[in-house]
Amino acid sequence: DVVGANDLQRTKLTYESRANLAKSPVAKRLFNLMASKQTNLCLAADLTRADEILEVADKCGPYICLLKTHVDIVEDFSAEFISNLQALAERHNFLLMEDRKFADIGNTVALQYGKGVYKISSWADLVTAHTLPGRSILQGLKAGLGEQAAGKERGVFLLAEMSASGNLIDAKYKESSNKIATEGADVDFVAGVVCQSSDAFAFPGLLQLTPGVKIDETVDQLGQQYQTPEHVVKERGADIGVVGRGILKATNPEQTAQTYRDRLWAAYQDRVAK
Amino acid sequence: DVVGANDLQRTKLTYESRANLAKSPVAKRLFNLMASKQTNLCLAADLTRADEILEVADKCGPYICLLKTHVDIVEDFSAEFISNLQALAERHNFLLMEDRKFADIGNTVALQYGKGVYKISSWADLVTAHTLPGRSILQGLKAGLGEQAAGKERGVFLLAEMSASGNLIDAKYKESSNKIATEGADVDFVAGVVCQSSDAFAFPGLLQLTPGVKIDETVDQLGQQYQTPEHVVKERGADIGVVGRGILKATNPEQTAQTYRDRLWAAYQDRVAK
Repeated sequence: DVVGANDLQRTKLTYESRANLAKSPVAKRLFNLMASKQTNLCLAADLTRADEILEVADKCGPYICLLKTHVDIVEDFSAEFISNLQALAERHNFLLMEDRKFADIGNTVALQYGKGVYKISSWADLVTAHTLPGRSILQGLKAGLGEQAAGKERGVFLLAEMSASGNLIDAKYKESSNKIATEGADVDFVAGVVCQSSDAFAFPGLLQLTPGVKIDETVDQLGQQYQTPEHVVKERGADIGVVGRGILKATNPEQTAQTYRDRLWAAYQDRVAK
Repeated sequence: DVVGANDLQRTKLTYESRANLAKSPVAKRLFNLMASKQTNLCLAADLTRADEILEVADKCGPYICLLKTHVDIVEDFSAEFISNLQALAERHNFLLMEDRKFADIGNTVALQYGKGVYKISSWADLVTAHTLPGRSILQGLKAGLGEQAAGKERGVFLLAEMSASGNLIDAKYKESSNKIATEGADVDFVAGVVCQSSDAFAFPGLLQLTPGVKIDETVDQLGQQYQTPEHVVKERGADIGVVGRGILKATNPEQTAQTYRDRLWAAYQDRVAK
């Protein structure tokens, strides 16, 4: 991958300095939170029981900047689960991201974001969305904010790459995603980009979220590919590394979260020091 | 668009004859249902209250082959809503499709399909999925069937095109979607393709589902583009036309559903007669 001048700049800047460049209020908040709490670890709490998610969120909370959920896999989802999750986010100072991967037409996305059992826009600081439907995905999400999100800071991470092997994203798709993330009237709603490499975007006011982080690199049986904390931060340009099964399946999730935090943070410090 | 010989054949064949070519048991069942009930109309029940969906499903049930839902926009979703919906599907002889547009890695898709509040694989005959994550989307869905879908016929419609203006799907993406739908070990799980034109795939054992059908062609404020029943069936190759707001917002949804059924079916008869 060819690294451009703009891009080199992004990965060399500190989170504090990038907070000042962010156009999204949530991105600004998250950059500052990461700098002050000294963590660039996101925990993917891909568990199917509310109490399990709350337990791991409480244990790992001190070491993460972001908790990423898939609420649609939770068997006993309830409004109480959400308020408990919000209390933990408040106590441990992390943000909540619902990894919904919105990918429908604007009218449907608006309803999926704001309505239904989950009322995602009422509680999730951040969501993820595919750029596949085009720019209308941003308009749809904004239309789904409604009264329940009034006065609250909300934003989206757009997917510019995927970690699944054999996925259909190519250079042209990536470039279009970059444009949707950085041009037009809705860029204030874009907090970052989900991608695997530093060339997906150049603008330093956006955060790069990179999933598939694991200390022991492997491929799972359903095509997911993993990379080490140092590799994703130093070689791939990740600002936030997402760890799921590496922590959830560990004997001691709390201690393991701390290890991932330490390694991801040290890699970031190395990156901006050079 | 260039129409190939294989493709010409597909749109010239009757639903009955194509039932015999289908590799997916659900596609076979749906082709036969369409032929015997004489309808190629799918109703998109994009409403946010369970009673409203059940009412429109009951009224329009006699005229449709398929009811397409977005259960994640239903405010008062419950297990009872699903069993009522299944009873209506049984009474009026139509299939249920949850338009989830799965678009994540295999492990997550498996959980989203089988788990959570919705347990989609336990009740939806059909679901939709993006091919964006690659072939692993099919493996993920199959992994999400579990015990709750044991002995039940299940299948997926893969999106090869979108109706939103400015979407990122190009010729290469379409070709890859076609390959995922027609090649490999999981083709028995693929019932059809969601697309806007007849050149997206050639295999006559798959069904073409085309959304965005409306008697008065328009564009909505969030980028959705509409086309007439005759245009989608005769010019675009649709086997099933999806109507949402055209019926839901009509003064008399039942009568309007009948009109859409009549026009879609007449267009199909014209198509196979020539």
